[in-house]
Amino acid sequence: MSLIPKGASSYQALADRWLKAHHLGHLQSIASWDRAACMPSKGNEARAAAMAEMSVLLHELLTPQDMAEQLAAASGEALDESQQANLREMRRHWLSLTALEAKAVRDLQLAGARCEHAWRSQRPANDWQGFLPNFREVLRLSREKAHALSQKLGIAPYDALMDQFEPGLNSAALDVVFNDLRSWLPQLIQEAAAKQKSDKVLKPTGPFPVEKQKQLCEAVMRLLGFDFEAGRLDVSAHPFCGGVPEDVRITTRFNEADFMGSMFGTIHETGHARYEQGRPKAWLGQPASRARSMAIHESQSLFFEMQLGCHPGFLRRLAGMIAEHLGQQAAFEPDNLAMLLTRVKPGKIRVDADEVSYPAHILLRYDIEKQLIEGQIQADDIPALWDEAMMSLLGIDTQGDFQNGPLQDIHWPMGMFGYFPCYTLGAMYAAQWFESVRQSVPDLDLLIAQGKIEPIFNWLGEHIWQQASFWPTDDLTVQASGQALNPEFFQNHLRRRYLAA
Amino acid sequence: MSLIPKGASSYQALADRWLKAHHLGHLQSIASWDRAACMPSKGNEARAAAMAEMSVLLHELLTPQDMAEQLAAASGEALDESQQANLREMRRHWLSLTALEAKAVRDLQLAGARCEHAWRSQRPANDWQGFLPNFREVLRLSREKAHALSQKLGIAPYDALMDQFEPGLNSAALDVVFNDLRSWLPQLIQEAAAKQKSDKVLKPTGPFPVEKQKQLCEAVMRLLGFDFEAGRLDVSAHPFCGGVPEDVRITTRFNEADFMGSMFGTIHETGHARYEQGRPKAWLGQPASRARSMAIHESQSLFFEMQLGCHPGFLRRLAGMIAEHLGQQAAFEPDNLAMLLTRVKPGKIRVDADEVSYPAHILLRYDIEKQLIEGQIQADDIPALWDEAMMSLLGIDTQGDFQNGPLQDIHWPMGMFGYFPCYTLGAMYAAQWFESVRQSVPDLDLLIAQGKIEPIFNWLGEHIWQQASFWPTDDLTVQASGQALNPEFFQNHLRRRYLAA
Repeated sequence: MSLIPKGASSYQALADRWLKAHHLGHLQSIASWDRAACMPSKGNEARAAAMAEMSVLLHELLTPQDMAEQLAAASGEALDESQQANLREMRRHWLSLTALEAKAVRDLQLAGARCEHAWRSQRPANDWQGFLPNFREVLRLSREKAHALSQKLGIAPYDALMDQFEPGLNSAALDVVFNDLRSWLPQLIQEAAAKQKSDKVLKPTGPFPVEKQKQLCEAVMRLLGFDFEAGRLDVSAHPFCGGVPEDVRITTRFNEADFMGSMFGTIHETGHARYEQGRPKAWLGQPASRARSMAIHESQSLFFEMQLGCHPGFLRRLAGMIAEHLGQQAAFEPDNLAMLLTRVKPGKIRVDADEVSYPAHILLRYDIEKQLIEGQIQADDIPALWDEAMMSLLGIDTQGDFQNGPLQDIHWPMGMFGYFPCYTLGAMYAAQWFESVRQSVPDLDLLIAQGKIEPIFNWLGEHIWQQASFWPTDDLTVQASGQALNPEFFQNHLRRRYLAA
Repeated sequence: MSLIPKGASSYQALADRWLKAHHLGHLQSIASWDRAACMPSKGNEARAAAMAEMSVLLHELLTPQDMAEQLAAASGEALDESQQANLREMRRHWLSLTALEAKAVRDLQLAGARCEHAWRSQRPANDWQGFLPNFREVLRLSREKAHALSQKLGIAPYDALMDQFEPGLNSAALDVVFNDLRSWLPQLIQEAAAKQKSDKVLKPTGPFPVEKQKQLCEAVMRLLGFDFEAGRLDVSAHPFCGGVPEDVRITTRFNEADFMGSMFGTIHETGHARYEQGRPKAWLGQPASRARSMAIHESQSLFFEMQLGCHPGFLRRLAGMIAEHLGQQAAFEPDNLAMLLTRVKPGKIRVDADEVSYPAHILLRYDIEKQLIEGQIQADDIPALWDEAMMSLLGIDTQGDFQNGPLQDIHWPMGMFGYFPCYTLGAMYAAQWFESVRQSVPDLDLLIAQGKIEPIFNWLGEHIWQQASFWPTDDLTVQASGQALNPEFFQNHLRRRYLAA
């Protein structure tokens, strides 16, 4: 049985195949959300096996033997510009997918699931030695993956892993950006912290009942335009945005002593969610409709959290909603909220880091994981390098504290190497977008203070969400903001927010 | 690429294939649960497409062209008794699956999803005419399915549909049982109702907060041995037991005015759940490990709800738990609970029916759906036949009330013809099992009153749950209870509970 219907084009046959993968991937996405938000512990083994089986199946579905010919034939067909972009994305995914045997995909997924599952209890037990055997296997398989991708794509092994999350990104370009960051960040952290020393900040007085926090989070999501008929808010240990574009599932976590964490975590995930909900509906199922990259994805969450969410005008609006849900407190005044959200205090934990010291955590991880993948260092070498970098970048002693050191993140246990740079690139893109919105929307600060934020979403929808993967990241960036990624926007944003008088 | 590894047996190749289907079916099951318990409205179309795609895929996976030869080859291999049973089940499923084209599977699933989705709003609107067009298509495709199965299995069309839920059941045998029921049930309903006329029953005084009800339900589930590390309790519009054997998802629904509904709904689903949680672990993924049939499945839920749950000794234990969670009320006394649970009052709604009049609802549906499938009547004929049967069996006028008439159940909109008889067969099996437990466990009534119910679960585990599909239903029944299905146990149970002095 041929998969190309008689008389149909090769392009159409490829599009049908991608749509089928989209349908089956839907089940994988929902199961993945369920695993984090609902699944009881004894369900894990069966779930991991089910998801690994589906990974293999999706891999096989998108790498049939005749796809090379189909892609070649399709490129000779009369396609419009969007279809050409779609075909380009099909070829890009196919190239990466064919670099790996189905068995390698399954082995890495199973090793990652095993390592991550054990890590859940090894982290609280500070058990680095217990973690190592599982992790060595994840690293071994990740190196094999990087090597195979490197051969196929003709780029360096670590670059090949980054390319899976941020197409076109390479370490040479990234080093320029990150070395610049390295040159001014540590001093900016010190100056910002010093400047804040005399600030008098009021701490909100809890407890704040979980049910009230949840209602507040949902009210903020509505203000930010989240469509509750096409998504949900739930709870998980590690907040994330998952599900499918037609039904986006975001999560947060609640702590009765601190409502700011759940609220700003929710604002962050709502940025991811609106990107997904805003993807072009007519193209769903096709690779061109996917979010452009993970750096662009993080640029949306960080735009919502850091650019819009911490904007003084938005905080005035938020202050009213907080008081409405949690009662009146002096600590809820907008100026105090702004101070609470901008405290610069270097610490051990990446996800708890302030906006200024956060990039230091990324520099550290980037340096280590690049060497890990390139084989210059081994898993055993991580703690010493970690301690050294934390001392040098943030002046913090982390010796022996594995649970708040290299065991803190889920990425490495799961074999997600090459992702970390996207967080800081995302912060940079977010700052660049915000300046573009400012150019395009008159009286932006006033509108935000009045809660008239729809023009901002319209700009993001038009320039980012609807553009999906129809352009390479650099083209998307130039079309949206008039220039390629320019880290000066981020530096200026930090200097303005943290050092201006 | 051959699916039979070199040197491996045909049986092993078949077993591997079934295991793969088990893994992929896991995702389908979780997505199905999610659809009912979590999914927002705009997710429906994409979910239906995803699940239809998976149905086709599972169908193709279990009906490859060379399976006939594999099954034949496997039957000549050296297999132990359990493997032979597994091979028998493989062949049974394969026969049914090959009766249908993948396209027919997808068409029926999509038509059912469409009809069921529209029915959700048509039912409250009492919109029988609006329902008909979608339903005619579901019926048309169901008849085609019945016809195709009939040809393949060599049995009558309606019997072929029943066979999908209750292997081996046919209308000739069922008519003997149901005609007997018809001969004494209407009178028993009248006698029981008359006998209860002078009873003084106290109604519990609400409201009962949902959170308290949920805690009570979970406490009762724990008493009944539900493993919360391998399952959950959630909320859905129509309670069901779903998920996978390693992670069983049951649902209930809460009404602040009535805690008895959520509690006994939960007890019912817990019976289904323990069957699933109790299936032989080493065999999961193989067809022999599946629950034997839907009548046997309903026998477990009805054993929990009607035999154990309404037992006077169990009610003494339950009364304490109710008071603990909802406070003291005279209505919570065990004798009053027993009266509340056994009120015989014929009504329009099957799921609200008492134990005695419930089988009348099944007789009605069986008569109608059998004629529908056999083409003796059309969709338009249903209301008149419904009204006539309701008047004759229960003396109730249902004319014009479609939402509490033929629109009340989800089964027909979804194309689930042939299922209804399983409910009443399940009630009959449950009564038969309870008598067998009584033979096997000394001082049963005393133990139940003391809350020492583990021996009951041990009996069910040994005779039903662990036996899974290793035996045809009749053999399972004889081995468990010393005889084939004997409806007298059910009649005796009803007479004892409802007519004894």
